[in-house]
Amino acid sequence: MKIAIVGAGSIRFSLQIIGDIAKTPRLNGTLISMVDVHEERLNASYILAKKYIEELEADLRFEKTKSLEEGIEGADFIINTALPFPQGHEDGFIKYDLITQIGEKHGYYRGIDSQELNMVSTYTYGLISYYDLKLALDIAKAMKKYAPSSWLLQTANPVFEISQLLNRLTDIKVVGICHGFHGVYEVFNSLRLDPKEVDWQVAGVNHGIFLNRFLYRGKNAYPLLDEWIEKEAQNWEPKNPWDLQMSPAVIDMYKFYGMLPIGDTCRNGTWKYNYNLETKKKWYGKFGGIDNEIERPKFHEELRKGRRKIIELAKEVEKDKSIKLMDIWPELFNRDKLSGEQHVHFINSITGGGNSRLILNVPNRGTISGIPDDVVVEIPVWVDESGIKHEKIEPDLTHRIKIFYLIPRILRMEWALEGFISKDVKVLEEILIRDPRTKSYEQVLSVLDEILSQPFNKELRDYLNY
Amino acid sequence: MKIAIVGAGSIRFSLQIIGDIAKTPRLNGTLISMVDVHEERLNASYILAKKYIEELEADLRFEKTKSLEEGIEGADFIINTALPFPQGHEDGFIKYDLITQIGEKHGYYRGIDSQELNMVSTYTYGLISYYDLKLALDIAKAMKKYAPSSWLLQTANPVFEISQLLNRLTDIKVVGICHGFHGVYEVFNSLRLDPKEVDWQVAGVNHGIFLNRFLYRGKNAYPLLDEWIEKEAQNWEPKNPWDLQMSPAVIDMYKFYGMLPIGDTCRNGTWKYNYNLETKKKWYGKFGGIDNEIERPKFHEELRKGRRKIIELAKEVEKDKSIKLMDIWPELFNRDKLSGEQHVHFINSITGGGNSRLILNVPNRGTISGIPDDVVVEIPVWVDESGIKHEKIEPDLTHRIKIFYLIPRILRMEWALEGFISKDVKVLEEILIRDPRTKSYEQVLSVLDEILSQPFNKELRDYLNY
Repeated sequence: MKIAIVGAGSIRFSLQIIGDIAKTPRLNGTLISMVDVHEERLNASYILAKKYIEELEADLRFEKTKSLEEGIEGADFIINTALPFPQGHEDGFIKYDLITQIGEKHGYYRGIDSQELNMVSTYTYGLISYYDLKLALDIAKAMKKYAPSSWLLQTANPVFEISQLLNRLTDIKVVGICHGFHGVYEVFNSLRLDPKEVDWQVAGVNHGIFLNRFLYRGKNAYPLLDEWIEKEAQNWEPKNPWDLQMSPAVIDMYKFYGMLPIGDTCRNGTWKYNYNLETKKKWYGKFGGIDNEIERPKFHEELRKGRRKIIELAKEVEKDKSIKLMDIWPELFNRDKLSGEQHVHFINSITGGGNSRLILNVPNRGTISGIPDDVVVEIPVWVDESGIKHEKIEPDLTHRIKIFYLIPRILRMEWALEGFISKDVKVLEEILIRDPRTKSYEQVLSVLDEILSQPFNKELRDYLNY
Repeated sequence: MKIAIVGAGSIRFSLQIIGDIAKTPRLNGTLISMVDVHEERLNASYILAKKYIEELEADLRFEKTKSLEEGIEGADFIINTALPFPQGHEDGFIKYDLITQIGEKHGYYRGIDSQELNMVSTYTYGLISYYDLKLALDIAKAMKKYAPSSWLLQTANPVFEISQLLNRLTDIKVVGICHGFHGVYEVFNSLRLDPKEVDWQVAGVNHGIFLNRFLYRGKNAYPLLDEWIEKEAQNWEPKNPWDLQMSPAVIDMYKFYGMLPIGDTCRNGTWKYNYNLETKKKWYGKFGGIDNEIERPKFHEELRKGRRKIIELAKEVEKDKSIKLMDIWPELFNRDKLSGEQHVHFINSITGGGNSRLILNVPNRGTISGIPDDVVVEIPVWVDESGIKHEKIEPDLTHRIKIFYLIPRILRMEWALEGFISKDVKVLEEILIRDPRTKSYEQVLSVLDEILSQPFNKELRDYLNY
């Protein structure tokens, strides 16, 4: 078996996946192909992966390459975790922050890619997620030639838009994978429920899912949530900027939609929760969540520090083979714990290693009523050798979730794809015309012009023939 | 045959319909039941109708009543043209203008009911069109009891929302009828095309239709439009505030959507064309269209004057039987001209008077691809004794029309219906939260509070338990 990781310079994620593979005995003997355009990170990832597997005494082999085609040739599975140029290149987040600042200069708080129902702003950058979609199509094209029977496990954001584009324009086998649904366990924990006794379902689209089924020991558990809201909600405090699952924003959305939003869903609400930092603090607690002018740059700085640290570690390991990764960093390097990522469960199950219940991003095909068949939804599925079976969604999502959240969010995806496919800057204009921060058509033209005129955005500029 | 006109105090419209009936020999002997809660207008309408029919020497009988139940009892067709309280009561437009002013005070230019893709603002008032929807349901309820096999011809606005609600909540037979599609003839006229040689279709939703088929003498006629745009568009001037079919807004929408918007569709664009009077003048010509702070109140004043004039005329006719309506007002009273309204064509055809091609508002049922089956669309249909047959829409509307115009407009309908059905003021809040003129949640609360606190809005306030 060959598994390729595209964007293997995402070191920490790659090590988690490789650890999961090593801890799944059926997958012994697998060849891991590590692919990244960024040599220093790729090398560090490769060194640490080999050392980790050595310590685990597992039977995995490794290759590394900067060439996409070489890396995926003959692969059975391809995990795409790459943040393409300019994010993943050098330090893409500097440019991400710059694009945000240009937006703010023109009146778009948190930048033009922070949008109603999509505040996580994973589009890089300029409303149609050009670089991400382009890379995904390049991978699909290479797959057709070099790995035609392979599965693509799409992990890099925007998972929704990328999975949708690939399903619509190509016939490769693709699933979108995200861990955001883990928010359900934070809910169970807050309500002091034994997760094993909870019968739950989530459904929606990536970063927009709701807890449609919530039974505890066979009985409706929403009254337990209502009780928590009444008695404990006022004492809630976020432990960090990402800790939002029980925040006032979530509770407010629950009251309106009738089902609890899970994971990143509450970050992707309306401007009601996001007008400014003060508003964000009111709804997301003292940090104001992660999507703001204080916490987001801090997070980028932490990412940089973390990356430097892990690259340093790789250098030390190269010099001193006696270092034991599992001793010095047991949180990341360990013998027994699985990461919680679903990739290796998927790989194991679909190759005959049993039946797994996963939350995946797959075409709807009638599973959520009222949502078009071809739209990629995030739902519980059962995976085994025979394929992916959708769980019946029961009870159905509320009508309000569909008309006020899902369909408007799906439209946003459609708008991005229309811009990407038609290569027409008028689509970018039209998206901004519908943005509540827009006060005039001139404002639309000027912010787009400044963003498209950035030297590092040449590829997008050329693509749009701007 | 009995035809009831609910809102028969809409004198001019009622006289047009009655004239059409009189000029359709098959419908001789019909009993016209005129229903209105406003006695003075009802009487005037009744007097003029009887006099007109006398002059035409036609065989129609008349009844008038303030009671809905009495008026529709045993009717075969019911035409609803009523603008319910407060618009139709006394002078509803004074309150309409007041509601607009309250909105403007809180930062909502042209009032909260002027919305992206729905600037015609036919909702009275408070985002969910409560009074209009309530009256329609009352009519449907009365029909079940007093005229169960009757057709309802829904003419009063919002035609889309009302037809949709009735299709969804009741099993009465209903079609929505609007004359907005007549814009196609303005296009043919501008391009100097013989209408008889044009093969055309329009499709969409009421006040949101596009010219999907446009052939002249069997050939694609869009190049003729492109030529007009290139050579003549710059000389275009509106003859009056309603003259918008060839305006720059329409041309701009055509360039983006790929098909020409027809009739009121261009009034229902985005804020790009509507930020303020200056912007409106740029896109709709020197009057800035009809939906602005100058022309709209002027129009209301003209309506008042016209109404006073016609009520005066009825009084004169009552005193002096020798007056000949057809001599003094031939535009409205005449022997040969049909009004252009589709109601009587529908009635005549569906009762066996032949096959008519009409543009009606009926459930989609697969006619426009990508639009839910149950959504009421405005499309060409063929009507005869056996029923209503949808024309195949060919070519299909463009993808952009669907994702940037139709689906967002359909969502707006769904939001209004959800507010009406759930009776939850939170839905009204949520609609305003998504309004680009909203800057804070407090602004939403304060504008709704002031509107719902108006004495004349007590019924809506009570309905929402506010």
